[in-house]
Amino acid sequence: MSQAFCQQFGTTHALIQAPMAGVQGSALAIAVSEAGGLGSLPCAMLSSEQIKAEIEAIRAATSKPYNLNFFCHTPPTPDVATPEREAAWRKLLAPYFAEYGIDPASIPAGAGRAPFSDGLCDLIAPYKPPVVSFHFGLPSADLVQRVKTWGGKVLSSATTVAEAQWLEGHGADAIIAQGIEAGGHRGMFLRKNEHGVHSGLSATFPDDWREELSTQQGTFTLLPQIVAAVNVPVIAAGGIASAQGIQAAFALGASAVQIGTAFMLCNEATTSALHRAQLARSAAHPEQHHTQLTTLFTGRPARGITNRVMRELGAINIAAPVFPTSTAAIAPLRAAAEKAGLADFSPLWSGQNASGCGALSAVELMRDLGF
Amino acid sequence: MSQAFCQQFGTTHALIQAPMAGVQGSALAIAVSEAGGLGSLPCAMLSSEQIKAEIEAIRAATSKPYNLNFFCHTPPTPDVATPEREAAWRKLLAPYFAEYGIDPASIPAGAGRAPFSDGLCDLIAPYKPPVVSFHFGLPSADLVQRVKTWGGKVLSSATTVAEAQWLEGHGADAIIAQGIEAGGHRGMFLRKNEHGVHSGLSATFPDDWREELSTQQGTFTLLPQIVAAVNVPVIAAGGIASAQGIQAAFALGASAVQIGTAFMLCNEATTSALHRAQLARSAAHPEQHHTQLTTLFTGRPARGITNRVMRELGAINIAAPVFPTSTAAIAPLRAAAEKAGLADFSPLWSGQNASGCGALSAVELMRDLGF
Repeated sequence: MSQAFCQQFGTTHALIQAPMAGVQGSALAIAVSEAGGLGSLPCAMLSSEQIKAEIEAIRAATSKPYNLNFFCHTPPTPDVATPEREAAWRKLLAPYFAEYGIDPASIPAGAGRAPFSDGLCDLIAPYKPPVVSFHFGLPSADLVQRVKTWGGKVLSSATTVAEAQWLEGHGADAIIAQGIEAGGHRGMFLRKNEHGVHSGLSATFPDDWREELSTQQGTFTLLPQIVAAVNVPVIAAGGIASAQGIQAAFALGASAVQIGTAFMLCNEATTSALHRAQLARSAAHPEQHHTQLTTLFTGRPARGITNRVMRELGAINIAAPVFPTSTAAIAPLRAAAEKAGLADFSPLWSGQNASGCGALSAVELMRDLGF
Repeated sequence: MSQAFCQQFGTTHALIQAPMAGVQGSALAIAVSEAGGLGSLPCAMLSSEQIKAEIEAIRAATSKPYNLNFFCHTPPTPDVATPEREAAWRKLLAPYFAEYGIDPASIPAGAGRAPFSDGLCDLIAPYKPPVVSFHFGLPSADLVQRVKTWGGKVLSSATTVAEAQWLEGHGADAIIAQGIEAGGHRGMFLRKNEHGVHSGLSATFPDDWREELSTQQGTFTLLPQIVAAVNVPVIAAGGIASAQGIQAAFALGASAVQIGTAFMLCNEATTSALHRAQLARSAAHPEQHHTQLTTLFTGRPARGITNRVMRELGAINIAAPVFPTSTAAIAPLRAAAEKAGLADFSPLWSGQNASGCGALSAVELMRDLGF
């Protein structure tokens, strides 16, 4: 099955380097693609100019396939992202603002992440990117079609069997089965109904994500159940950090693997020194590695290493406003704390197994992983 | 590594049939042991007389090794299991008592599950059971030693790397790595400290288990990290439901696998008709299979299929009193609802993958699993 993936995606290895906004750019994608994997560029937090520059950097450095990753959430409408919610969030953070001497009035509101759109599609179309992956479902049918028109393959993540079936029905060429072990944002995009079953696409979720999160499965059960439920290739993601893990994923029916956390200490990653220190500590002391799904940094659950703000406010706090508006108010705290050498307010994205992290090149890591 | 397990435990196959109180007795254990696996008898909910009778049934039917499973929690002291907590729990359940015409005053208080003790050890010692497994840690050092004195092997479950290290340090001959996908009770026995790291043995946990549950990992990350951290054999549990799953567990370093859910529809299991119907539905419609970790039935988190009481009260409700005292007040509701053909108040234990469930004999299932 891994050969079929390689043929379909034009890679040498059945490996996708997970797109990880904030900790990597074109350099990591180039290194992985050049070494025969599918390198990914996370575009969700880049400006249009930055996206163009990064794509051009990739094309200048490699002729091999690469993947552009976009979020495709529905931006919150004013009835959801209300001033009252923003005010409640800032009130919760007020003691921290005081601690760091930050004037809350100086903090601009506003989203930090724009979803895929006609404009972004116009921007990337001239480059005909070979693969475009989405998080939080898929964009509108016409946008999916536009990507396919230039021969682009469309990927997205499923966190349940129902989401995988939805993605297959809406044109995904392959599906990433994202087990609960994975670092970063959960790709959840269908809401559960009263029976706990995913029943429909949703722009918004309840403020208390904990009930929704009960639908989320470990890779060990999610992967084979998705493989059995769809006809497109399935890419395993979540907790894969070694050659043995890759072998296990293939045994469970994966056509390829997507690996994120293990790449975060790579030389080509842009992971901050503070974040690197935490990952290195986790790699050396797995018994002390503690991650949680938290909504504090963006408003959607994402897995990161537990830090001060997660401990003090609870990793899932209903005051954190709807994705992606939580980011604005916590950003200046992050900046101030990082200036003081503290990761207390930083999103320290990581999966549940950081033992694959090493300070080496992406090519060396891929060799260690058996590629 | 699986050969080493078979040699150590005297089995033909590197398979443990998970002990599942309430859905199986000696018949399933006998069938599995006779077929070359390690059959398990759950003793936690049996009286002394029942335990003796079941052991004698096993010994009469097979000369092969078997496993006796006990809980080893610290029973709640009166300062934890207070009348106020019990009253609050019954108040929460009051509308249901009214619905079923149950007089709450008629419900006896009292624990339903006794931990392993000197008395139980006296009871089983004459039979020299070849394997004794524990849930929620290990009993006192002298009890562990007594089991070893007759040549009994001691097993217990770890849900974190720290718990695995603790079990190895306290005499476990092998460790079951229980991934979050597993059905039934989480084996958690160390509490996390403020940094989320397990720091010590604990008799009690906070009423809101949700923070504690953030330490729990999927099999894909828990298993290899425990394998790397201890020197004793590691048995994979949680989400293994097929020959492919077994292969994946071995790839991740397991010396054996423990399988529960897949055995629940077996002819030899005593799973109720209501419970069987739910599992069969999940097996046929994995996209509708929704399990949750719930404290409602016993006071400790255990994974089961979501039903009415879990939906209406929330699967983790802080009113559910300390393990195992929650059981008493919910038991008559379960009985009344089951009489009416409803599983609304029944613990429908199941892992996150019920697709391995089939109405066949244990031997046939083992053959399907590749043994």
